[in-house]
Parts: sequence; structure tokens; C-alpha cells
Amino acid sequence: MVKILMHGCNGHMGQVIARLAASDSETEIIAGVDVSDHITNPYPVFKSLEDYRQAWEKDESLKADVVIDFSSAAAADKLLDYCGAVQMPVVLCTTGLTPEQLERVKTVAGKTAVLKSANMSMGINLLLKLLKEAAGVLAPAGFDIEIVEKHHNQKVDAPSGTALALADSINEEFNNEYTYVYDRSTRRQKRDAKEIGLSAVRGGTIVGDHDVIFAGEDEVITFSHTAYSKNVFAKGAVQAAKFLKAKPAGLYDMSDVIEGA
Amino acid sequence: MVKILMHGCNGHMGQVIARLAASDSETEIIAGVDVSDHITNPYPVFKSLEDYRQAWEKDESLKADVVIDFSSAAAADKLLDYCGAVQMPVVLCTTGLTPEQLERVKTVAGKTAVLKSANMSMGINLLLKLLKEAAGVLAPAGFDIEIVEKHHNQKVDAPSGTALALADSINEEFNNEYTYVYDRSTRRQKRDAKEIGLSAVRGGTIVGDHDVIFAGEDEVITFSHTAYSKNVFAKGAVQAAKFLKAKPAGLYDMSDVIEGA
Amino acid sequence: MVKILMHGCNGHMGQVIARLAASDSETEIIAGVDVSDHITNPYPVFKSLEDYRQAWEKDESLKADVVIDFSSAAAADKLLDYCGAVQMPVVLCTTGLTPEQLERVKTVAGKTAVLKSANMSMGINLLLKLLKEAAGVLAPAGFDIEIVEKHHNQKVDAPSGTALALADSINEEFNNEYTYVYDRSTRRQKRDAKEIGLSAVRGGTIVGDHDVIFAGEDEVITFSHTAYSKNVFAKGAVQAAKFLKAKPAGLYDMSDVIEGA
Amino acid sequence: MVKILMHGCNGHMGQVIARLAASDSETEIIAGVDVSDHITNPYPVFKSLEDYRQAWEKDESLKADVVIDFSSAAAADKLLDYCGAVQMPVVLCTTGLTPEQLERVKTVAGKTAVLKSANMSMGINLLLKLLKEAAGVLAPAGFDIEIVEKHHNQKVDAPSGTALALADSINEEFNNEYTYVYDRSTRRQKRDAKEIGLSAVRGGTIVGDHDVIFAGEDEVITFSHTAYSKNVFAKGAVQAAKFLKAKPAGLYDMSDVIEGA
Repeated sequence: MVKILMHGCNGHMGQVIARLAASDSETEIIAGVDVSDHITNPYPVFKSLEDYRQAWEKDESLKADVVIDFSSAAAADKLLDYCGAVQMPVVLCTTGLTPEQLERVKTVAGKTAVLKSANMSMGINLLLKLLKEAAGVLAPAGFDIEIVEKHHNQKVDAPSGTALALADSINEEFNNEYTYVYDRSTRRQKRDAKEIGLSAVRGGTIVGDHDVIFAGEDEVITFSHTAYSKNVFAKGAVQAAKFLKAKPAGLYDMSDVIEGA
Repeated sequence: MVKILMHGCNGHMGQVIARLAASDSETEIIAGVDVSDHITNPYPVFKSLEDYRQAWEKDESLKADVVIDFSSAAAADKLLDYCGAVQMPVVLCTTGLTPEQLERVKTVAGKTAVLKSANMSMGINLLLKLLKEAAGVLAPAGFDIEIVEKHHNQKVDAPSGTALALADSINEEFNNEYTYVYDRSTRRQKRDAKEIGLSAVRGGTIVGDHDVIFAGEDEVITFSHTAYSKNVFAKGAVQAAKFLKAKPAGLYDMSDVIEGA
Repeated sequence: MVKILMHGCNGHMGQVIARLAASDSETEIIAGVDVSDHITNPYPVFKSLEDYRQAWEKDESLKADVVIDFSSAAAADKLLDYCGAVQMPVVLCTTGLTPEQLERVKTVAGKTAVLKSANMSMGINLLLKLLKEAAGVLAPAGFDIEIVEKHHNQKVDAPSGTALALADSINEEFNNEYTYVYDRSTRRQKRDAKEIGLSAVRGGTIVGDHDVIFAGEDEVITFSHTAYSKNVFAKGAVQAAKFLKAKPAGLYDMSDVIEGA
Repeated sequence: MVKILMHGCNGHMGQVIARLAASDSETEIIAGVDVSDHITNPYPVFKSLEDYRQAWEKDESLKADVVIDFSSAAAADKLLDYCGAVQMPVVLCTTGLTPEQLERVKTVAGKTAVLKSANMSMGINLLLKLLKEAAGVLAPAGFDIEIVEKHHNQKVDAPSGTALALADSINEEFNNEYTYVYDRSTRRQKRDAKEIGLSAVRGGTIVGDHDVIFAGEDEVITFSHTAYSKNVFAKGAVQAAKFLKAKPAGLYDMSDVIEGA
């Protein structure tokens, strides 16, 4: 049984993760931490990591094997300090960290196991890996590469971070020779072979669709990922927590979870 | 039997249309017109419309019921004059006509039946019609509209003329209230309800894919058209010719062929 | 404001509909009826329609304009009797009615407005309508028709009722000349033109995808519907309730809601 | 420059391959063999392998590096004997070989390089490889596997040989624990985790679409391959010929071409 501390347990994703961990026979939420206390949970919730620490120093059964964090960039500094100090492995799902915080992540990874990924879904992380192989075969054979992503009408950035991560994953295989093209309407010229086109569709409540398209001579291969709810990110976080228990210090990402699977 | 004169019979599309018309039990190519004579055809080919006219004035069996034109904008003036003068119905597939030529089309349509469409495929023309109905129901119910088109890597314009025609077909239903958005990467803002996003994918030898997406709350409806070869345009031209035989003077398009079907 | 009585308010769909109706500025849930009382709701809940009737006869403000029913076939008889007796319009979402119950539906529709549909989603009901038009044009032009549906791995029936409704909708246009084919692996023969193939994919938690495919010569047109959650059925029920308020007696379905939209 | 002998040069695929090889800067068709002589080709054509052998024994410049075979199972015995006798590498694209012929293939592979694959397209062969990896990660994580293939209305067998090859490729990773399900309409039961569903769609002139679907909790990953013409098989054959030149004796398939790419 993997004992999990849910950091940010009263946020939307914290609630989803806790429900999922509770229904998984290999994990349990041993405690939560949240500044907000408007929700009643089936596990003890502490106002701060300090309060939590005092609690488990008195009652060893409250001590978690891994922290899952889905709080906010503002709360990340204290969390990282705590994890480093008590050598607690941490699954870091919070995005938007500053360059200083990313440095701190590296430092803490010298003391305990830290897992951090742009996208927590198993599916996307598997694609990140398979696309490298596919591109290695198809690009030299003359296939053009395009990415189309679709998200809900409330999303302000485009293309999505995941679409960029998919493109980067391919581009790394080719010494970053590819340039990214976001708009073909403003020029009248043929596509260059060393382009990756990225198109962003926005509408309704689409959770997140990503298509990576390899278009060759009379042949098209498409790798598609569709998320039907944010549960997929929660599920990935729980799998990451299982993977991270008792791992040595170091910086991990979801590709390690997949390799270990 | 519909007797067809193929204007531009030695071009690529002229050849495809002639083969298709020959294999259709209701049509035959009675003659061709082309300035080039590098190809041997199973029907007589004339250097000019004038030569052809002299021939059928001597031999009535050479007289066509309809002309299909797939030549060039440069040749359109003479063709239009001829069709008007002898009251010969014409399926005009040549694109890139000047505003003056488009005026001439209208004048000639006062004398004989003229059919002209942005895209000759039955499928696309059916979609142009159904999309109006779909948008009339879905847009007021809060669905967002997006179009994604895919074409080969030699195409220089984007988005495709057909994608714009699909968008226009919807927009006309709403007093052109929608604005078209080609690139979301250069701004950080939510989608407006009165936008139609148009994305262009370029790669390999893709003949032409068009997806019209209506994205609502937890529900997405997509109308997709895939062309596997340029035969679809040829097939539409032959169907148009059958439709146009013995029709009264006037300006027609493929939607009339569909209605009449 | 449309006042709704939610019949079966403590079931899963009853809860979803009530939430949706509460967030819609044109509707409110005035009361619920449910034999179960394990949930606390922001509106009064009655054990039976009789209890509810006694309540609104004392307090007119409790009287609903329309009932939405998402209970069970077992509860349908009493509901239909009640609606007929007090001339209360009803949106009937319960499935699996017996032939006797379907007769009773017709009888009650002589006294009040009754709306009943195989699938409550706006998108599917729009497709049911558009497919008739599409098939009317494409089938005579030689297009073959196939349907592929995808649902979660807990679904026991195949193909889905919605897939069959889509096929029936097309078949009605052709005097039911088409036969349905569910399995091509057991025979070695070419497809007949008068077939509709129906394929059922089962996996994961897929809520419900339906593709209707028209495949012609070098051209394929696909109408796709994807549901991301059961909210789409709830949303349709609320729209149906708005439509049904103050409508004359008669039997309606979702196509009337779309026409009226 | 790889010199190719086209065995079955006057068949449809032989013609396509020869055109493609002629336009590739690294290959040329040095000669053809065909019992039929109704076509004029830009290279010498021999009635039999024996005639061809006599020719190159007199004129060394006619000697090929590799044979590509797209003839018929009936002609395979003579071809295999020839290739074994003169140690000529051979790309064997003919299908429908008898068990005895498959044994002969193995024997000949002891003397020269023989490449044989169920499907010659680069894309399908890449998928065969990637799917093993994907299934290794996703199946243990609870994803269900389904395959949908689409082909033209003249195809008599279902599911396609390629769909079965894709399923087998996955099944091999799991000690063939999966059973294949072709029809869900005849039973009323939930899907078993150890099933692979295979659905066959037939319509129009679809060249060949294959979707391999991994459906998990709120997440679906799809690997799609679309062929737009039979050129993709021709292209694969030419790439195989380039790969096979000067390779040691042995039995190869397209996965070796991909690995070597």
C-alpha cells in the first residue's frame, strides 16, 4: 500500500486524485494539506506542511510515502523545502514555476525523488516516446509532420503546452532543425520539409485532443490522443506516486513511469 | 444519351473526365477541343471551337448537348461567346476568372444554361447545403464552429478555397456576423462565440480533407469530406452535364444538381 | 421561467438534469419526486406523484409547467396516468417501455403534450434529420452506407440503440430496402449496395461515438457525433422541457425541438 | 544505383513499381519478366526467367542486383528456384502462397536474401512495431484494444489480412492470450479485457484505412493508417529492394527495412 499525502487536497484536481487513489487497491490518501477548509474529507486535512509534520512526528501512521502536489506555484517553494528536508518523494503536478523554482526543483532532486512532467497522462507520455521512433523512420522517408490540437473555448494560450511538447519531442531527434509554423494564411508558398505545422482548434468543452500527423506519398499515419475528462491527469499522478515510492533521489518524469511499467 | 464536347480535352482533368464519361452508360464524349494535339483520343479533336462548329454544321451527329470546360481562364472568353451564340449549355470548371469574365458569365447565362461551382464534388456541395441547416440549429444552442482542412505539400494558398466556401456558406445564414480566425498563437485570449476558426494542414500528397466541427457542451459534431483522387471533381462535372442538357437559360451551380437528384 | 418537476430526481441523470436546469436562466426545478430520499436537494422532494399533487393543490406556486421523467419503466404507468389526468406536459426519457406502455403513451398524448425520443442529445437528433437528406442525394449516386459506434466496456447490447435509430432514419427514406449487416467475417462475398453495415467498438469509458459513413468513388463523407459526458442527454431534456411548456396535446420528439429552434 | 529485375512487370502493380523505381535516383529497372507482352516498356522484357538468364549471361550489364516479384503464386516456384540457383536477392510481394511454397521460401532463404511481408507499406510496418511497445504499456494499465479497418466494396474477405497482422503483432506480446471478436450483436455481455475486437467497414473505393484503438479510463489513443493509392505498396517494394542489395542470405521482412532506415 502506497500512503499518499495530497498537497492541495481541496482544489478540483486534488479532490479528483483523492477519489481515484481511494478506489485503487494499492494506494490510500493518508492525509491532505490545504489552506482552504470548506470541504469535508475522509482523511485528516492540515492547514500547512508544518502542522502535518508535527502530527506525524507524534503519530507515525500518518507519515506518507509520497506527496502528490496539485496546488499552486505560490505554494511550491515551501513544499520543495519540506520534501528536501524530510526526504519525502514528490510528484509535482503544479505548472507555471519560475526559473528560480525550476532551479530549486533540481536542488531538491539531489536529496529526494522528484517527478515532474508537462502532461501527466499515460497516453500523452507514451506518445512522446513513440513519436521519436516514428519520426526517426518516417521523416527520412519524406513524410511531413503536422500537429492539430483541440481544446475548450476558455483556453487562452495556443498551441497547447502538450502540442509544443510533442513537437519538441520530435525536433530533439533532429538537432532541432525543424521550425514551427502556426499560420499558413499570411504567405503564399509551398511547405518546407523542415517545418512542423501546429494548428489550434478551440470550441465547446473539449478537454484535450492531440493529433500528430505524418503525411507521405499516398499514405498518412496519425497518432491521436483524446482526453474525456481531467481524470486522466489524476490517474497519471497516482501511477507516478506508486512508481516513486522508495525510489532513490533524482529527477524523474512520466517516461520513467512508462519504462518501469 | 448526353453528348458532351470536352473543352480542354488534352489537359489532365480533361482526360480524366473523358474516361469517366466514356464509362458512364448515359454519356459519351462526342468531340474534344484543345490547342495541344500530343494525345491520341477515341473521339475527334478540334484545334478551336470555330473548327468544331464548322464540323458539326456539316455533320449533325457531331453536335454536343453540353460542353464541359476544364481549360484555362485565358480560353474562357471565346468559349463563353461561342456558348452564347449557339445556345450551347456549358459546365464551367475553370477557376481564376477575372471580374470582367464573371460579368460575361452572367450575360451568357441570359442566353443559355451555365453551371459554375467553386468545387465540383457532389460531397462538398451536399455539405455546403447541410451545413446551413446544421448551423441554424447548433449555433443558437451555443456550439462553436471550426474548420480544419488538409492538402498536399505543393499547395501554396491557405486556407483552401473550399474551406472558405464552407465557412461562407455558414456565415451567410447569420448575416455575415462571424469573423474568420487563422492563427491563435499570436494572442492570449478566449475564443469569441462569433468566430469561425480555419486551420490549414499541409503534408505529403493529401488530395483534400475538410472537417467542419461544431463543438458544444460535452458534445462535438463533425462533418468530414475526404477526396481520394481528383476523379471526384470529374465525376461531378459529368453529373452536372447530365443535369444541364436541355435546361433553360440561366446560371446554375452544383446545388441545383443535388436538388434535382 | 419554465417550472420543472423532476421525476426520478435522486437518480444519476435526475441529479445531472436538476443541476443543469438550475444553471439555466430560463428554467428552475420547482420540485422532485423520488421513492429514494438519500439525497438532500435544494427543492422539495415528494415520495409519490400523489403526495406532490396534494402539495400543489394547497400551494399553487409548487405547480410545474412540465415534468421531466428519468426514472424507470416500472414507474412509467403511474406517471402517464397522472400526466393525462392533470394535463401536464411530460418529457419521457425512460427507455425500455413495454408495447402496452407505448400504447398508453399514445393515449395520454391525446390529452397532453408528450415528448419521447430514443436519444435526447441535440446533436444526434440533428443528425437523424440531416442523414435523411444526405442519403437521398448520395445513395442514388452510388455511395455505400456504414455506421461505426463506440461505447464503454460495460455496455452489453450491440449495436447501440442510437446506431440502429440512425440506420432506421436512413432506411425509412428508401422503403426499408436496406438490410443491416453486423459481421462480415463469416462470409466471403462482396458488399451488396442495399446493405448498411453496423460495427460496434467497445472499450474503456467511451461515453458514445457514432460515425455515419457514406463511401463513394474516391470520396468519403462522414457525419460524426462524440458525447463527452451524459450531460448532453440532460441538456437535451431541459431544452425539450422549454419547448414543451404550453404546447397542445400530441406526441412530439426531439426533431420537433430542433425544428422549433 | 540498385539494378532491379521486375518480375510480373506487365501487371498493374508491376507497372506502378517500375514507374516509381524509374523516378527514384537510386534505382533503375534493368529488365522485366512477364508471360504477357501487351505493353511496351522502356526496358527489355523477357518471356521467362530462363530467357532473361541467357540474356545477362551474354550481356553482364543486364544483370540485376535484386528481383521484385509481384506476379502470382503460380509463378512463385520457378522464381524461387531461380533466385536460389543464381543467389539473386528477391523481394517477394506475391500473396496466397501454399504451405509447400512457404517451406520453399525458407529453403531459398538459406542461399540468398529473401524479403517477404504481409503488407509492403512503410507506415503499416512501422505501426506493427510501435503497437507492440504501446500495448506493453497500455494493456497492463487497463486499456482495451480494438481495430477498425475500412476497404472498398469489392473486397470479399474480412477482416483484412493487415488488420489480423496488427492484432497478431499485439497478441504475440502477451503469449496469445487475447481472443478476437468479430461480432458483438449476437450476444448480450460485457467485453472481456482479454479480447481484441475487429470491425470491418466496406464501401466505395476506399484503398485501406486501419485504426488501432486503445481505450482506457477517460482516455483513448488511436494509431491510424490511411492509404490513398496502391503506390504505397510499390514504394515499400522499391525501398525493400534498396535495402536487400548485397545483403547476406536469410529471411527478411519490412521491419528489417525500418530498423535499417
